[in-house]
Amino acid sequence: MAAYQYTAVLVFSLLQASVSGFPTNIRDPVCGYKSCPATQPSMLNVHLVPHTHDDVGWLKTVDQYYYGDRNDIQHAGVQYILDSVVEELQKDPSRRFIYVESAFFYRWWKQQNQATRSIVTQLVNEGRLEFINGGWCMSDEATTHYSAVIDQMTLGLRFLNDTFGPCGRPRVAWHIDPFGHAREHASIFAQMGYDGFFFGRLDYQDKDRRKKTKELELLWRASESLSAPTADLFTGILPNGYNPPDGFCWDQSCEDAPIRDDPDLEDFNVDDMVQMFLETAHNQSKFYKSNHIIMTMGSDFQYENANLWYKNMDKLIRYVNGQQAAGSRVNVLYSTPSCYLQELHRANTTWALKTDDFFPYADDAHDFWTGYFTSRPALKRYERLSNSHLQTCNQLEVLGGPKSRSGPFGKGDSDTMRKAMAVAQHHDAVSGTEKQHVANDYARRLATGWAHCQVLVRNSLAVLSGSDARRFFCENLNISVCSLTETSKMFTMNVYNPLARPVSWSVRLPVNGSAYSVTDAQGKPVTNEVIPLSKATMALRGQRGSALNELVFQVQAPPLGYTTYSISLLQNRPPPPPPRPKAPLTMQNKFLKVTFDPATGLLSSLSNLETKQSIKLSQNFYWYNASAGNNEESDQPSGAYIFRPNCSTPFIISKTAKIQTVQNGVVQEVRQWFSPWVSQVVRLYAESRELELEWTVGPVPVEDALGKEVISRLDTDINTSGYFYTDSNGREVLERRRDYRPTWDLLQSEPIAGNYYPINSRAFIKDKESQLTVVTDRSQGGSSIVDGSLEIMLHRRLLYDDVRGVAEPLNETGEAGAEGLVVRGRLLLTLTPPDTAADAHRPLAQAQVLQPLLSFQKGPAQPSTRLQFSGLQAALPPAVHLLTVSQWDYDSVLLRLEHQYQSKESKAFSQPVTVNLQKLFSNLEVLGATEMSLGANQWKSEMSRLDWRPSSDAGAPPPKRPADPSSLDVTLHPMEIRTFLLRVWQS
Amino acid sequence: MAAYQYTAVLVFSLLQASVSGFPTNIRDPVCGYKSCPATQPSMLNVHLVPHTHDDVGWLKTVDQYYYGDRNDIQHAGVQYILDSVVEELQKDPSRRFIYVESAFFYRWWKQQNQATRSIVTQLVNEGRLEFINGGWCMSDEATTHYSAVIDQMTLGLRFLNDTFGPCGRPRVAWHIDPFGHAREHASIFAQMGYDGFFFGRLDYQDKDRRKKTKELELLWRASESLSAPTADLFTGILPNGYNPPDGFCWDQSCEDAPIRDDPDLEDFNVDDMVQMFLETAHNQSKFYKSNHIIMTMGSDFQYENANLWYKNMDKLIRYVNGQQAAGSRVNVLYSTPSCYLQELHRANTTWALKTDDFFPYADDAHDFWTGYFTSRPALKRYERLSNSHLQTCNQLEVLGGPKSRSGPFGKGDSDTMRKAMAVAQHHDAVSGTEKQHVANDYARRLATGWAHCQVLVRNSLAVLSGSDARRFFCENLNISVCSLTETSKMFTMNVYNPLARPVSWSVRLPVNGSAYSVTDAQGKPVTNEVIPLSKATMALRGQRGSALNELVFQVQAPPLGYTTYSISLLQNRPPPPPPRPKAPLTMQNKFLKVTFDPATGLLSSLSNLETKQSIKLSQNFYWYNASAGNNEESDQPSGAYIFRPNCSTPFIISKTAKIQTVQNGVVQEVRQWFSPWVSQVVRLYAESRELELEWTVGPVPVEDALGKEVISRLDTDINTSGYFYTDSNGREVLERRRDYRPTWDLLQSEPIAGNYYPINSRAFIKDKESQLTVVTDRSQGGSSIVDGSLEIMLHRRLLYDDVRGVAEPLNETGEAGAEGLVVRGRLLLTLTPPDTAADAHRPLAQAQVLQPLLSFQKGPAQPSTRLQFSGLQAALPPAVHLLTVSQWDYDSVLLRLEHQYQSKESKAFSQPVTVNLQKLFSNLEVLGATEMSLGANQWKSEMSRLDWRPSSDAGAPPPKRPADPSSLDVTLHPMEIRTFLLRVWQS
Repeated sequence: MAAYQYTAVLVFSLLQASVSGFPTNIRDPVCGYKSCPATQPSMLNVHLVPHTHDDVGWLKTVDQYYYGDRNDIQHAGVQYILDSVVEELQKDPSRRFIYVESAFFYRWWKQQNQATRSIVTQLVNEGRLEFINGGWCMSDEATTHYSAVIDQMTLGLRFLNDTFGPCGRPRVAWHIDPFGHAREHASIFAQMGYDGFFFGRLDYQDKDRRKKTKELELLWRASESLSAPTADLFTGILPNGYNPPDGFCWDQSCEDAPIRDDPDLEDFNVDDMVQMFLETAHNQSKFYKSNHIIMTMGSDFQYENANLWYKNMDKLIRYVNGQQAAGSRVNVLYSTPSCYLQELHRANTTWALKTDDFFPYADDAHDFWTGYFTSRPALKRYERLSNSHLQTCNQLEVLGGPKSRSGPFGKGDSDTMRKAMAVAQHHDAVSGTEKQHVANDYARRLATGWAHCQVLVRNSLAVLSGSDARRFFCENLNISVCSLTETSKMFTMNVYNPLARPVSWSVRLPVNGSAYSVTDAQGKPVTNEVIPLSKATMALRGQRGSALNELVFQVQAPPLGYTTYSISLLQNRPPPPPPRPKAPLTMQNKFLKVTFDPATGLLSSLSNLETKQSIKLSQNFYWYNASAGNNEESDQPSGAYIFRPNCSTPFIISKTAKIQTVQNGVVQEVRQWFSPWVSQVVRLYAESRELELEWTVGPVPVEDALGKEVISRLDTDINTSGYFYTDSNGREVLERRRDYRPTWDLLQSEPIAGNYYPINSRAFIKDKESQLTVVTDRSQGGSSIVDGSLEIMLHRRLLYDDVRGVAEPLNETGEAGAEGLVVRGRLLLTLTPPDTAADAHRPLAQAQVLQPLLSFQKGPAQPSTRLQFSGLQAALPPAVHLLTVSQWDYDSVLLRLEHQYQSKESKAFSQPVTVNLQKLFSNLEVLGATEMSLGANQWKSEMSRLDWRPSSDAGAPPPKRPADPSSLDVTLHPMEIRTFLLRVWQS
Repeated sequence: MAAYQYTAVLVFSLLQASVSGFPTNIRDPVCGYKSCPATQPSMLNVHLVPHTHDDVGWLKTVDQYYYGDRNDIQHAGVQYILDSVVEELQKDPSRRFIYVESAFFYRWWKQQNQATRSIVTQLVNEGRLEFINGGWCMSDEATTHYSAVIDQMTLGLRFLNDTFGPCGRPRVAWHIDPFGHAREHASIFAQMGYDGFFFGRLDYQDKDRRKKTKELELLWRASESLSAPTADLFTGILPNGYNPPDGFCWDQSCEDAPIRDDPDLEDFNVDDMVQMFLETAHNQSKFYKSNHIIMTMGSDFQYENANLWYKNMDKLIRYVNGQQAAGSRVNVLYSTPSCYLQELHRANTTWALKTDDFFPYADDAHDFWTGYFTSRPALKRYERLSNSHLQTCNQLEVLGGPKSRSGPFGKGDSDTMRKAMAVAQHHDAVSGTEKQHVANDYARRLATGWAHCQVLVRNSLAVLSGSDARRFFCENLNISVCSLTETSKMFTMNVYNPLARPVSWSVRLPVNGSAYSVTDAQGKPVTNEVIPLSKATMALRGQRGSALNELVFQVQAPPLGYTTYSISLLQNRPPPPPPRPKAPLTMQNKFLKVTFDPATGLLSSLSNLETKQSIKLSQNFYWYNASAGNNEESDQPSGAYIFRPNCSTPFIISKTAKIQTVQNGVVQEVRQWFSPWVSQVVRLYAESRELELEWTVGPVPVEDALGKEVISRLDTDINTSGYFYTDSNGREVLERRRDYRPTWDLLQSEPIAGNYYPINSRAFIKDKESQLTVVTDRSQGGSSIVDGSLEIMLHRRLLYDDVRGVAEPLNETGEAGAEGLVVRGRLLLTLTPPDTAADAHRPLAQAQVLQPLLSFQKGPAQPSTRLQFSGLQAALPPAVHLLTVSQWDYDSVLLRLEHQYQSKESKAFSQPVTVNLQKLFSNLEVLGATEMSLGANQWKSEMSRLDWRPSSDAGAPPPKRPADPSSLDVTLHPMEIRTFLLRVWQS
């Protein structure tokens, strides 16, 4: 027995030796909070957090950043960062590093050999390399839609989970760079199970106030609907953005003095450095509550040569802590955000409560980062459309089964699109704050993603319909271009609806005939009209298309499914005469009445015929003259990030509009022409409760050397008293008030830009009687500068860089490269009483976000074709949105159900609602369902978050939530999203 | 037996595994040529040589470079380079790296722990890390003195030898950056045992010609005196300076595209890169003889993050060699200069013979790097003086024994000075091409070195003399400042002579008395005179001194020893009346007669009274107007490196000189005043065979915005026919010819700058009868622009940077920082028949290089003081120079004996001469002597160099050298230096 023990010890020690050099086995992981370094309870503990901030595209494309290509633009190569950090971490077990952006880590990981992978796994398992945030990117907060944010987080977190298991699961959200912070993001992070959140940028006035009151750390209650602490998120504001303190930047990109500790060489500086560090630490600690402070030791693309950082930090720690023997009460250590967070949690104190958001962000009196809410409107729209495409692709991958990925049209996938969309969420992507060539790359990625999805969609629809005839997609219908419909005398149109309820949708197809027969899947004729293309559209589409007319009709599509329309040319007469203005100028259907001022051609009123309410409503286009940075108060110009009008009064483009009208049984249009670069169609479909304003802006002229920021402004007689409302990432709505911030006494220095807020899907103004809601088709900036008014910025063309790093003026020149970019989009207006407004705008906005996908086949439908299909057994209840249906593994599907109403916003729908998971799908049998965290990287039952106490809490503790009726009958409360992994059987 | 074998195999494999991870034992080294990688005999082999070029000071100080401090000036940190390279070499045994500058490696090595040292030793032992060149620095070739070059090489090579043994011994000399190449350097390298030499910079016309004739590789026969192949050195000119080929620079400082080999990412470029590389290799191979070519993969301070380089080179090698399967005949490999050299040697072919040097260096038609021959004349003089101090310090350390290092005056050492001098040999140090703050640092290091030496010298002289009275050094005697002599009524002066033969030396001490008694060591009175200080000196020394007069007398000092003079004030009368001009203006002693033109005050003739020869000789000062880089032909300005006069005719400072004269039994002076910033003393001592021209130039005025390059020009009636002569690093003399290069048809584009050559210690012009030799006190540039004329550039003050990187105009402003620097120096002129010129200039130049060290003690000598001492039993023969006497280890001394005459230059002295080592020293017993290579890193008997054959060889094979008479009787042949390690006993 003794001999046996001896042998065992020997074997163990050999194993140990082997592990320390090169891991051959994985020992029990001691990651997460358990792996945190010891601290000194009676000292000021300084947590050094080595980190790199790696933009998933900005001045260079994501792949250029990964490889370190185009270092002439910016020195940055992420492959080398990860190489170097992994190397350096191995040299000392006390060293720590955090990594954030899974888009990059994924690229690196797939190029590593097994030996490196084992080493990295060991580092992760020991908490020496810790993933923080962990999404595919660090998403923008102002211009992203919550569904795309959840998707990109899920993609990154899944990669970490699949690769590293529980030790790869981030505990801390980390948005150190985004330019303002959305409450919905905080809510999402809380629901994903994060214990805390750190960021770097907030309004300079807010920061000053918080430093004085020691409220740089706070508890963010991020939802008015979800019961606390579901959406509570501990939030820490970092002391120095995300940079190291002055004098302590040791990256290769920095120029601070290294620690020179060889007494035989010149300029020995250890004593000076220690002294400077102690002063820095003491100064910083004045603004924080506990005896723990954090220093972010890194910055953009730093640690490409991690040795520089670690070698000097090793010395710093050694020499600073060496002073403890001489009585110093400062203890400095390698740490991570989660280890710092744990110490804050152990402080067992209370934290200021925050319920609004961190918009707009200003870093100085005339430096409001509110331009990017609108920058690159075409990219913003393409990103939003791509989200719709991705959801459709995901759904059809599930509904069509394995043949979707490999079928009659070849190999398709949703993964390319998922990654492209994830990359596009980055805070210099959809934000519009990247260089032009990088914006092109994001768009190209989305296009490539969609090309992969198109194959999948073709395969899936072939499976579902039984027809493998070639299927065409027309991606330029917004400018009335579609080769097939322009030339074909007979074709079918498949309308796939990604929503969980039937939709009605108006279709406008470019055609050259003058009369068509349209029949639905049941063979019933569908009312349709042929109207001439507008002059503006003709000009816009140029040589790309040949259509003279548009065929307009209304389609009805089933939930999570498709229907098919057959279209045949009847007559090829000359085009109908151009529409002429009629007097009096009025449009009216069953629901709405719209009047125009005949003198100006502008809108003059809007009435809801159902509720019998009416408002004065005029609308026109204006432009703010972008500051060139040459005025007395400040040299800040307007740019990709920053909105700074040179003058608070915008210039009107034209006081009057030339108009043409279209009026028939399907659609009524007033076509307004304001200038060679601004036109609009005010459109009312026969079956619509919303008024459509289809605007076309561009090329914005800059021959006058004036940058222009173009707005559409709605002026009403609604009594707004300074209030207006914007959504947060397309979900909950926040109240805004002009020249006011809820948490500090605002000193307003920019009366326009300082009142701009991001609009992701809707904004509204209201009084007791009337609410005018605008649903947008992309993220935009907007405000209410005078009472009764709501303005939305549509397009920006600028001639100066705004000195925030992008180093290019935001001057999009479009395809030709010479003229300015023309952008087209639409605003949808509803007029309702306030208490039923959500009943209209919630489904309307979801239908904009997830819009039907049209596809076309030439000729008549093949005989055995299944012309209609729904993936659901029945439409879901109106309050329930099917947020995610996505293949997870071979036999599992990720499902997210969302209650799409806030509490109290709708009498009809702001109620708990129950859905049975087994009765959901028509062609999938659900064998089991397990609830997960929102990020799908943890079973819901195993989620355990740190608890934090607010310093003030008005409300009583929330009532205990009733259990679901059964494991497959799940109840959704207002604004709740529930995530399930379903085990399924394709039936 | 079978079982035993099995066990053995097992043990061996465990050992192997252990070694590959972390060396626990050192196996038999397989370094040097044996460790070279395999090549492909039937392919074009491309040797990639990863290297870094680390200036030992340039834009930053050597210690700033080491630490990576002041990266705002230049991004460079050698500590990180070595960290990173050692890390990366471990990852793949095929990777190679070379390191060059021991000054840096030494700094790094002493900060490494035992584990790192073991790893590095292993890398060295396996030839993966190879030391190349290996001196303390990569010395300048134009402005260095051979003795200091040998010393700095010895210091570096000894460090390598002591640290790594034979595997640390460099086989290749590597001067990739110096701005022109001296033949004496090649000779030194050959004598140090190097097998080959590579450099990067040579005249662009020369390079073009050599490319055409495939003579980029050549055999340099670097001495006219030493019999071949003693000074033969295979020399390779690198294809691309020392940089990588275009498009293949992967350092963090470069912007070339990385190899992007993930097909899933954008911009996959493997095929393009391979193609581009193959083209580059084929193009390069056109200019070289063999099927091996070299590519220098690195540059200034590169490899701080070696991963970038190696990761991409790994890929390059893999993908390029991967093409061999498809028929490519290119083989690329990691290699080193020595491995490349070995392959060239194996080619077994012949190489073009070269017997001149590579000066001047021009990189374009108007870009002659001939300004730095003179740049920073004060630093150049201080460096030369410091060399003398170091030799004295070395000698006194040996002669005084261990108490020299730790004695009555504390701890002293020669090591600090040795390192400071070694650093000062760098090609941006004594060259004068560093930034001002770096020049200050070099000077400060020399001053610190001398302070350490002063303690040693005080100790040693205390031991030797028996007097421990405080001893003072007067370092400002050149401007007549010495606090002790100015104020003391009685003092002694110790004159230490570092030469191996007695010297006579004229001393001028600043005093305030008007009559002094001077007695020698035997108590005999010494003739002396008191003369008034010149106006120029008064102005120059300013407040630093108070002397009104100078006490002038001649001293005699014994070989390698000292004597003592006692000086007492006799009279303190008012100063003698200022000297008045006398007519006719003539100075004459026993040897020389000098006449002046009374109309101009300029020299008019020089006669040697012994040889009864006479020449017309006028001398004046001129300045070239430095190009501001704004003329039509080229935008090249004059700067620290480049000399480019705006006009070929220099401006005269004054056609006439105001003069004063001094005439007495000790010295005759004509003091010439040309302008407020140019003056001169023409001085003839009673006992001198040379005429002294002590010039004082500065502050060079630049209020006219014209940069000025000041020359002293000697115009004679010597019939030079375009020829003149300059020395190479202070040793052999090379013939120069105006507008001519020995090895190619020169197209002369800069008639002045293109004819400038470096002068280290002497230059001369001659015809059949007369040779006028000028011995200088520092390195300077000079030329003969018209027949009979010899000009020497003294000082330069420039207003523009010359765009070679230093990024500062060479505008030395002196101590005050406002005015320009004033510089004083001297030229010594001898007039002789050509065939006896060397008999005069050889000893004269050595006496300038190793000048007596004066030290002073107050009051009378202590009674028991030994007033005179010689370390030699007898003076060495006139032909023998004692080049090195330096403590090596506790009981060993490094000795270098030099034959200081070229073959044939002196009938009297150009003969073999024998010295007995045992009879050398007076107070050291030589127990044994072993001859070493010149660099003292190898026993001479073990030296074995690769042999190379010239394509043409006029001479017959040299006669076999007769053996030394005995092991301690060593014979020296003309220009031979022999190096011995002596085992000694302090007797």
